[in-house]
Amino acid sequence: MRFKVKKLNISGGSHLIVVMNEVTAGLEGVHASSRVKLSNHKKSIISVVDIADKEVLGRYELGLFDEVVEALGVKAGDEIEVNPVSQPPSVNYIKKKLDGLELRPNEIKEIIGDVVSNELSQVEMSAFVTATYTRELTMDETYHLTKSVIETGHKVSFGKGIIADKHCVGGISGNRTTLIIIPIIASLGLKIPKTSSRSITSPAGTADTMEVLAPVELSLKKIKKVVKKAGGCVVWGGAMNLAAADDKLISVRHPLALDPLGLMLASIMAKKKAAGSTHVIIDIPLGKGAKTKSIGEAKYLGRQFEELGQRLGMKIKVLITDGNKPIGKGIGPVLEARDVLWILERDSRGPVDLREKSLYLAGELLELTGKANPGEGLGMATRALDSGAALKKFKEIIKLQGGKPVSPDKLEPGKHSFEVKAPRGGIIRLINDDLISRIARRAGAPVDKGAGIYLYKNVDDYVEKEGVVMTIYAENKRLLKEASKLVSEDLFKIK
Amino acid sequence: MRFKVKKLNISGGSHLIVVMNEVTAGLEGVHASSRVKLSNHKKSIISVVDIADKEVLGRYELGLFDEVVEALGVKAGDEIEVNPVSQPPSVNYIKKKLDGLELRPNEIKEIIGDVVSNELSQVEMSAFVTATYTRELTMDETYHLTKSVIETGHKVSFGKGIIADKHCVGGISGNRTTLIIIPIIASLGLKIPKTSSRSITSPAGTADTMEVLAPVELSLKKIKKVVKKAGGCVVWGGAMNLAAADDKLISVRHPLALDPLGLMLASIMAKKKAAGSTHVIIDIPLGKGAKTKSIGEAKYLGRQFEELGQRLGMKIKVLITDGNKPIGKGIGPVLEARDVLWILERDSRGPVDLREKSLYLAGELLELTGKANPGEGLGMATRALDSGAALKKFKEIIKLQGGKPVSPDKLEPGKHSFEVKAPRGGIIRLINDDLISRIARRAGAPVDKGAGIYLYKNVDDYVEKEGVVMTIYAENKRLLKEASKLVSEDLFKIK
Repeated sequence: MRFKVKKLNISGGSHLIVVMNEVTAGLEGVHASSRVKLSNHKKSIISVVDIADKEVLGRYELGLFDEVVEALGVKAGDEIEVNPVSQPPSVNYIKKKLDGLELRPNEIKEIIGDVVSNELSQVEMSAFVTATYTRELTMDETYHLTKSVIETGHKVSFGKGIIADKHCVGGISGNRTTLIIIPIIASLGLKIPKTSSRSITSPAGTADTMEVLAPVELSLKKIKKVVKKAGGCVVWGGAMNLAAADDKLISVRHPLALDPLGLMLASIMAKKKAAGSTHVIIDIPLGKGAKTKSIGEAKYLGRQFEELGQRLGMKIKVLITDGNKPIGKGIGPVLEARDVLWILERDSRGPVDLREKSLYLAGELLELTGKANPGEGLGMATRALDSGAALKKFKEIIKLQGGKPVSPDKLEPGKHSFEVKAPRGGIIRLINDDLISRIARRAGAPVDKGAGIYLYKNVDDYVEKEGVVMTIYAENKRLLKEASKLVSEDLFKIK
Repeated sequence: MRFKVKKLNISGGSHLIVVMNEVTAGLEGVHASSRVKLSNHKKSIISVVDIADKEVLGRYELGLFDEVVEALGVKAGDEIEVNPVSQPPSVNYIKKKLDGLELRPNEIKEIIGDVVSNELSQVEMSAFVTATYTRELTMDETYHLTKSVIETGHKVSFGKGIIADKHCVGGISGNRTTLIIIPIIASLGLKIPKTSSRSITSPAGTADTMEVLAPVELSLKKIKKVVKKAGGCVVWGGAMNLAAADDKLISVRHPLALDPLGLMLASIMAKKKAAGSTHVIIDIPLGKGAKTKSIGEAKYLGRQFEELGQRLGMKIKVLITDGNKPIGKGIGPVLEARDVLWILERDSRGPVDLREKSLYLAGELLELTGKANPGEGLGMATRALDSGAALKKFKEIIKLQGGKPVSPDKLEPGKHSFEVKAPRGGIIRLINDDLISRIARRAGAPVDKGAGIYLYKNVDDYVEKEGVVMTIYAENKRLLKEASKLVSEDLFKIK
């Protein structure tokens, strides 16, 4: 059946929705929330149907939500063909996995294809995610899943030769090593085009922090130009559409807070592979504040990364690091950016732990790529930092991305602040990372760039009675009040 | 924040949706597809947000889909309060179950409460359904689930004393025993108020077939009146809202075709208990065409029904019956209704297998309730049928429900028909029940009441070469053509 397009100027989030006249829907056997295939001469997409009273839409007028208009590239008055779709066979494969059976490569390919083309509904995708959670994917399945995600997404080429990269799994607060590692590596002549994410549940993602210093939402053309000139970049990866299937699955994983191992591996490694990475350092923080709590778990995860990397033809080095406490002092975009600049400028206010961890990871990456001989990576990285070469490179990247290098002292946190003091003197034994995140987010991070927390004391530090342990910053007074209400005796332990 | 109601006159199926101005949404931190709580002075509901361009809606104007207007009972221009909601704790219990841990009674209660109040999204409900599929519910969990479903739904009382009932699990084609059992039992003075379902995936549900003879969508008041006078009824159960939680879970189970044991038990038994049933026969067809394929499976299922029934204070008798072939000759509302009337009228055209199975089940129910002594139920049921008492009772029920008794010969199937003939002579060894269903549905059943299939030959019957095995009926020529295209050599096997 053919319909005339009417734009509704309504957005349904990640859902593709069209609205049909009730009379037409009745005649054509289309129910509310059933799926239809929309086609114009250019392409086809699958969309969910809502039903409108007959006064709202003409008989063969189809109301389109914004996402559908964009996906189809149509305008008001265009004609499109609408056909009901039946449940795709991939639903049976999802059920097969729920039954505990291993999926064949073509079955995984079909599931991922249907995720991307919107043939699978949210309910069906949710079943797939929970299936991979309760029935852990085998390495074969994970490999084919990763391949399918790569094949159904975009790929980017930054040219031949070594493409270095790093990734941190299940972060802890602060820990903004990327912004230090990238300029070190790039200053030594290696290519390291870093695509980062924005925060989902943390006070800041790497992209959020970099955005304090330079634009991060660059066109692919611009990104390539930056990398060609500077060797490195720090941009937001979302616009590159490297793993469309993964983005859709994440939209289902997120509300459930489910992070099945196989999906996580595929998500990370597909993006690396699609961006052409050849040598990748994987940082797995281990400890109380981190996602990985036991050494056995960390090692198992590490082996999975290595095996998957090998199958994909990438060199992977896994590093298990200390995840028992925040790294650095600033938490939140501006405060983290300031830490980073202090370190690159060799200012004594730069947090030592963040500097050391960054140098360690950079050194390992230099050795993995063969740029440094075994045992010489750390020294090479340290010289690049201490000579000012890394700072120079970072300024170059900032400029190329469209930013303006700034002194860290010009980076001011939110003007409203609240000091959290020690109720008694002693050694801080524990800082509650989850609560730190929640407080910083409630204060406005990452939307309000200046919101966050500055840690004066970290785990193992001595604090006097009434000494300031941390300061909460916010740009908005009400948010500061709400954030400071979250402070409780669970925030840190003194013994 | 307070909004003015604007009715959009759009329906979103089972979803409750509101549309917010993009500027307001940005300020209030509301994203597309996030959930908000809507409250007026009467009540509160949870709804999903879509976002509209600022030209579409005023800053504090909220667009309401039909389902929200109905649920809140508001009109255009009314003021309502809107507040963001966070993820309910029940999501953690769902995750706990996914991790393979047993849920406590209060956790199950909270999940079901959140299902009913719409606090859980489709994605979250889907995770719950798959959790109960891969991690089978224990009997304790099933019991508390059933109790929670009962507590959150409506209850109906048909007075004190015995309330008889029957249920068939995972039907086979035809098999319309209910319409014969109800008048037999009621004619013997027992109360048997039968609430039935419409078809979801079969060519007809009991309610669809009864609707050929009388209205089935009755008000609760009317239903009580019918039962008070006639002792029995056959009505559609959907409007009684006996198990609101179950209806919502089914909306998620259906697209996935998942039927986790615990949810199925709770779904069936909660409705029985809420309708006050005290003595229930459970018919479990076992065989190729049925849902239950092995005797071990059937017995396990039977024991679960008995144990759950005992805990709920109901007397349950499980009967495992032959599910290897269709029961009766007609498939589809009109054709089934005709079979039923022929049997009640003791017309020789009434299918013997359907008559015998109905008498067997009715006899067992009479013995279970104590109406008949052990071993005497079948005789009592047979006399009620052969004396014409059951027919008289059925006519009384039809009239009380608002129908007009009709002669079976006036019940005419669709005027377009297609004969399926035997390619060679021999004994029919197998009829593909799934394919029978699909053909009958494609022909228009159950929406077109006259559409369906009439089986001239069943399994174990001899057929000559070119003899008619079955006739497909349709009210619409195009649908007949589409249905007849589904006929293949898989439809039946002759040996």
